[in-house]
Amino acid sequence: MSFAPLLNDSFLRACRRQATDHTPVWLMRQAGRYLPEYVATRAKAGSFMGLATHVDYATEVTLQPLARYPLDAAILFSDILTVPDAMGLGLSFAAGEGPRFAHPVRDEAAVAALAVPDPEKLRYVFDAVTSIRTALNGRVPLIGFSGSPWTLACYMVEGAGSSDYRLIKTMLYSRPDLLHRILAINADAVAAYLNAQIAAGAQAVMVFDSWGGVLADGAFQAFSLAYTRRVLAQLRRTGDDGQDVPRIVFTKGGGLWLDAMAEQLDCEVLGLDWTVDLGAARARVGGSAGGPGKALQGNLDPNVLFAPPARVAEEARRVLDRFGAPHTDPATIGPTHIFNLGHGISQYTPPEHVAALVEAVHSHSRALRRG
Amino acid sequence: MSFAPLLNDSFLRACRRQATDHTPVWLMRQAGRYLPEYVATRAKAGSFMGLATHVDYATEVTLQPLARYPLDAAILFSDILTVPDAMGLGLSFAAGEGPRFAHPVRDEAAVAALAVPDPEKLRYVFDAVTSIRTALNGRVPLIGFSGSPWTLACYMVEGAGSSDYRLIKTMLYSRPDLLHRILAINADAVAAYLNAQIAAGAQAVMVFDSWGGVLADGAFQAFSLAYTRRVLAQLRRTGDDGQDVPRIVFTKGGGLWLDAMAEQLDCEVLGLDWTVDLGAARARVGGSAGGPGKALQGNLDPNVLFAPPARVAEEARRVLDRFGAPHTDPATIGPTHIFNLGHGISQYTPPEHVAALVEAVHSHSRALRRG
Repeated sequence: MSFAPLLNDSFLRACRRQATDHTPVWLMRQAGRYLPEYVATRAKAGSFMGLATHVDYATEVTLQPLARYPLDAAILFSDILTVPDAMGLGLSFAAGEGPRFAHPVRDEAAVAALAVPDPEKLRYVFDAVTSIRTALNGRVPLIGFSGSPWTLACYMVEGAGSSDYRLIKTMLYSRPDLLHRILAINADAVAAYLNAQIAAGAQAVMVFDSWGGVLADGAFQAFSLAYTRRVLAQLRRTGDDGQDVPRIVFTKGGGLWLDAMAEQLDCEVLGLDWTVDLGAARARVGGSAGGPGKALQGNLDPNVLFAPPARVAEEARRVLDRFGAPHTDPATIGPTHIFNLGHGISQYTPPEHVAALVEAVHSHSRALRRG
Repeated sequence: MSFAPLLNDSFLRACRRQATDHTPVWLMRQAGRYLPEYVATRAKAGSFMGLATHVDYATEVTLQPLARYPLDAAILFSDILTVPDAMGLGLSFAAGEGPRFAHPVRDEAAVAALAVPDPEKLRYVFDAVTSIRTALNGRVPLIGFSGSPWTLACYMVEGAGSSDYRLIKTMLYSRPDLLHRILAINADAVAAYLNAQIAAGAQAVMVFDSWGGVLADGAFQAFSLAYTRRVLAQLRRTGDDGQDVPRIVFTKGGGLWLDAMAEQLDCEVLGLDWTVDLGAARARVGGSAGGPGKALQGNLDPNVLFAPPARVAEEARRVLDRFGAPHTDPATIGPTHIFNLGHGISQYTPPEHVAALVEAVHSHSRALRRG
C-alpha cells in the first residue's frame, strides 16, 4: 500500500517530543453521538456494530469531526470490544444499554477455551484503517487503538459494564491464576491486533486502559501494567512506509502510578485524565530538553464543554498554562503536550463548543510559544 | 448526659497517633445489608428511611456488627443525605434504586432558597447518637459522620446518583458563583450537624467526601477541599465529657491530593482508598515519632472479601505490612494506622469472611508490634 504524504505532522512530532508551532489537539471519541451527522450515519447503518463493521460507514464517521474542526489527528472509529468479540464471546449492544457479552469468561473451562482470535475475524477493522488512511489523503495522521488487556478482561469476566467490578475482582483475589491466563492471551491478541492495524496504515497506536484505575495499588502493577508492557514489547516499531509508529498508553484514574508507568512502559506518550496536575506530571515524567521522557496527552474534563464557549476557551488555556511552554528547539527533543480531554467526549456536548475549544488550543498554544 | 467509661480506646488512641497494642479496625458501612440481621430489622422498619429515622432500629442495626465481630469502633447508622433532606429537598429511596431528591437545586431561585436547616428536623439523628452511645455502654467509641459539602452538592444538583456528574459540573464551569453558594451553606449545615452529633455523644466524627475524586485538579481544591476546611474550622473540639473528638476526612479517589489534604485540613485522620500505597502515604504524611502528621485509615479493596477467608487474611496482612510497624512508644505520638476498607462493604459480602478479616488484623498487627 502507498498513501499520500502527511501534510500536518504536528501530532506525530509531539508524540516524538519534537518541537511544533502549536499544541496538536484531538479528542477521545471525537467521532460520536454529539455530532448530528454521526447520528444520521448510524441510523443508516442500523446499529453500532453495523456501523463499526462497515468499512464505508466507519470511514465516513471517522472523517466527520475533521470536516467541522481543524483537529490534528484522526482516530479509527471502532469499539474496544472487537477483540473479545472475535474470540467468540458474542458482543451485542442492546438499545439504551452498554455492551454485553453472551458468553462471559468466568470459570476454568471458559478460560481454558480462550485463544488469540483468528485475525480474519477482525479484517473489517484493518480494512477500515486502510480505507480511512486513504480517505484522509495525508491531511492528518491516523491513530489505531485497542483496549488494554485488563480493560478487555473486565468486560469479558463481568459480561458487561460494572459499577463495582465484583466478578473480576473476585477472580483476581480468589483465582489469580485464571486471570493471569486471560490477561496473557489478551496481551498477545491486542499486540497482534495493533500490529495488523499498523500494517494496514495506522500511524500511531493507543492502548486504552479505561479501567486500570479501579485496581488496588499492587494489583494495578501486577494485573494491568505488566500486561500493557507485554503488549508494547510485541509491537512493530514502524509502518510499511518505514515511519516510526508512536505508542500512547492512557490509564484512566492512573495518576498515582504515573512514575511507574513512565519507568516501565516502552511507549512515547502517556495519557492523563483531569485529576492530574499537568505541570506536576511534566516535572515528574516529561523530561528535559535533549533528555528522555514521555510526551503527555490530556487532560481537560469533558464536562467543561457544557459551559459557554468563552468559559471553554478559558479552561483550555488553563490546561495549556498548567503544562507551560513546550520546548521550541527544532534541533532536539524535549517536553511536549498533546491536547485532549481526560476521557471520551460526552454525547450531550454542543458541537459549537468543540469549535471554541480547538480554536483556543491552537491560538493560545501559539501565543505560549511566542512567550 | 453521662455515659459509661470507655473500655476499648484503641481507635481513639490511634486517631490521636498514640501507641496501641493492636491496629484498631472498623469497616465503612459495617451495619448493612450483608448481615441477615440487618435485613430483618430493615424489613420490620419498612424502608431505609424508616430504619434511619427510628431511634431504636438505628441503635439495633448499629450494634449488630459488634455482636458478631470484635470491631474497635461503632459508626452511627444513618444516611449521608439527611442534611439536604432537612433542607426540604425531599429525599426518597425507590425500591432497587439509589436515593433521589424530589426538588433538586439547579437554578438561581433554588439556590437562593437554600438555607442551613432547622436542627430540629435532624433531631432523630442526634437522638440515635445518644441512644447508641448509651447502648454501647463504653464497649467501643461511637463515630458520627456527614457527607462533605461537595458530595452533598453532587446529589442536590444531580437529584440522584450520577455516572458523569454532568449537571453539577455544568454548574461548576458555567455558574461557579451558584455552586460556591450551595457549598458555603452546605459547609455551615454540616458543621452544625456534626457539632450536634458531638453534643449528643459522638466521640469522633468523619466527613465522607465520596465524590471528591471526580473533580479536576484545581477544581478539587476550590470546590471540595476549601469547604471541608470550612467545616473543620467550625467544629467543636471536645465532647460534653471533656474528651477531645478526633476528626477523620476521607476523599475517595483523592490519593493525588494527599499532600494538599495533609497540609490544609485541620483533622487528625485521613482516610485512603485502595489505590493508594499505604507505605508511601505514611512516608509522605504520617509524620515521625514526636512530630506532627496524620493518622491514616484504610485501605483494603472491599472486593477482597469475596475471596476465601485464608486469602482475605493474607490481603489484610499485606495492607498492614505496607503500612509497616506503627510506633509503640507510649510516651509520645507517631505514625498510626486504623484498618478499614477503602470504601463501604458490599452487600454481597459473606459475613464469615469479615470475621476472618478482623481476626487477621488483630493478630497480625500484634505480631508486627513484636517485630
